[in-house]
Amino acid sequence: MFKKVTIIGLGLIGSSMARGIKEKELAEQLVAADRDQNVCDKVMELGVVDEATANLAEGIKDSDLIILAVPVGAIEDVGKEIGPFLKPDAIVTDTGSVKQAVVDALQPFLPESVHLVPGHPIAGTEFSGPESGFAELFHGRWAILTPLPETSIKAVEKITALWQALGSNIEIMDPKHHDLVLGITSHLPHLIAYTIVGTATELEDDVKSEVLKFSASGFRDFTRIAASDPTMWRDVFLYNRVAVLDVLQRFTEDLTALQKAIRRGDGDYLYKTFSETRDIRKQIIDLGQADYAAAPDMAGVAPAGTPPAVAPHKGSASSG
Amino acid sequence: MFKKVTIIGLGLIGSSMARGIKEKELAEQLVAADRDQNVCDKVMELGVVDEATANLAEGIKDSDLIILAVPVGAIEDVGKEIGPFLKPDAIVTDTGSVKQAVVDALQPFLPESVHLVPGHPIAGTEFSGPESGFAELFHGRWAILTPLPETSIKAVEKITALWQALGSNIEIMDPKHHDLVLGITSHLPHLIAYTIVGTATELEDDVKSEVLKFSASGFRDFTRIAASDPTMWRDVFLYNRVAVLDVLQRFTEDLTALQKAIRRGDGDYLYKTFSETRDIRKQIIDLGQADYAAAPDMAGVAPAGTPPAVAPHKGSASSG
Repeated sequence: MFKKVTIIGLGLIGSSMARGIKEKELAEQLVAADRDQNVCDKVMELGVVDEATANLAEGIKDSDLIILAVPVGAIEDVGKEIGPFLKPDAIVTDTGSVKQAVVDALQPFLPESVHLVPGHPIAGTEFSGPESGFAELFHGRWAILTPLPETSIKAVEKITALWQALGSNIEIMDPKHHDLVLGITSHLPHLIAYTIVGTATELEDDVKSEVLKFSASGFRDFTRIAASDPTMWRDVFLYNRVAVLDVLQRFTEDLTALQKAIRRGDGDYLYKTFSETRDIRKQIIDLGQADYAAAPDMAGVAPAGTPPAVAPHKGSASSG
Repeated sequence: MFKKVTIIGLGLIGSSMARGIKEKELAEQLVAADRDQNVCDKVMELGVVDEATANLAEGIKDSDLIILAVPVGAIEDVGKEIGPFLKPDAIVTDTGSVKQAVVDALQPFLPESVHLVPGHPIAGTEFSGPESGFAELFHGRWAILTPLPETSIKAVEKITALWQALGSNIEIMDPKHHDLVLGITSHLPHLIAYTIVGTATELEDDVKSEVLKFSASGFRDFTRIAASDPTMWRDVFLYNRVAVLDVLQRFTEDLTALQKAIRRGDGDYLYKTFSETRDIRKQIIDLGQADYAAAPDMAGVAPAGTPPAVAPHKGSASSG
């Protein structure tokens, strides 16, 4: 599919892409470029690339495709460093969780002959680093591309084919719209999870130890999300500030209304609110984006009427 | 273990206990008492009890053990109704998610000769109703008992043996302390999940449909929690108001501090906060209350260095 591919940044996402590209033989030559020499040594040791270098400009030399899999906050520096050395007609893509900021950061440094196709795979785990990657990470997941109106269709098609080969489904979106949708589906949930786990870390020691012990009752689901890479998430909130603050404002208003209902003992309001949210889960299951059985970290979750054949896991998020 | 056991309220928890008691042969006679005749018919049809009646006073006649598995808000009415008909030396227990309120609601109606041992199994799913129950629900889970200082030790031992027979581990706690710990580990997470899913239901239709489509990026984990039984959860917040408002206040302060850091672009504060929460997850894993593999509704979660042998599930909560 490509002659030479260079991946810059070999963390969870970069190293998973490397494994997938190797496995599917999508590149004649696959190069890792990472400023951290330890990471370069690690990916060579893991055997997921053909070459690795800590010199980005050298790593991208003659590459047809350059994949930036670095935190969003590092995109501008990388763009500045590699811009002058990009091969004419090369395609540059990225994997950042924020898209408008990536477009703004990269565009000034890319020669006119280079094609920018920003991308965002909706995939990940709470683990980070090159050793956490695996080729199947993108199987059956969405990859969102946010090309600009002037982007060459051929370049978009090539990045589409890349993600499809890695097992993903493709959605094309405007960058700003991407940032709003992900602000709600991903950034706000992570912010909330970080907050609630942070609140628990400040409890008195005796209460804290019991919170850990009984974490299966809901809290534990949040701790997994709140174990995600701090650098990546710092950058998400810094670079998607406007959308995040907007959805956070709506969330806070709704939380305040529930708080008031609790204080006043308004059971009707609570019941009404808790009933409406049930329906959303059904819609997600109907969309095939969740199912009855694939349950978070939790006790036997059986579809109504069907007791599970296997022993349930420990813990549950709906146990009161 | 018991001659006659009556379970009042045959929802997820009550019907799961019924199945477990039958399976382990813990009662010579097992009776279901539920004001809803449809529920009575259903549990007879499911064959999980020996008898079922919509008349509570009749159902508890001569029972050695009465298990109240009704929403916390219904406890007082049930206590009033059954109090005069309880057999001397009978044991009354419950499964409510709030404990001090249950003690306060029941005590006035129980004869002195009856032993109250309030209990709370930390187990559940987001499904409700008698057909959702299964005997394994309590396997390897905690059951918290909150007896009063004057409660007979023998009665506490019998309820301990009951839960152990159902597969649970036992923890004894003061009722007020229970309400604080569960306020943090369970009630606050549920309130937050209900809120965030509620916020999404109010979005414009086009954004909302995309939120559902890309829900795997974090939002989906919250929708499962927010699909829990609305009556049960309304009562939790009404009857654990003081503890919930207290922990909610701490949460709101922490969220406001993060919001301010985002607005001011204070990356150091964000990084520091997001790093500290990582450690909590490790502690929970060390405690055996979560593991690397049992992951919420998500993409292949592999311990660092060990790519999973099986294909990962769809979706991830840490994908940005």
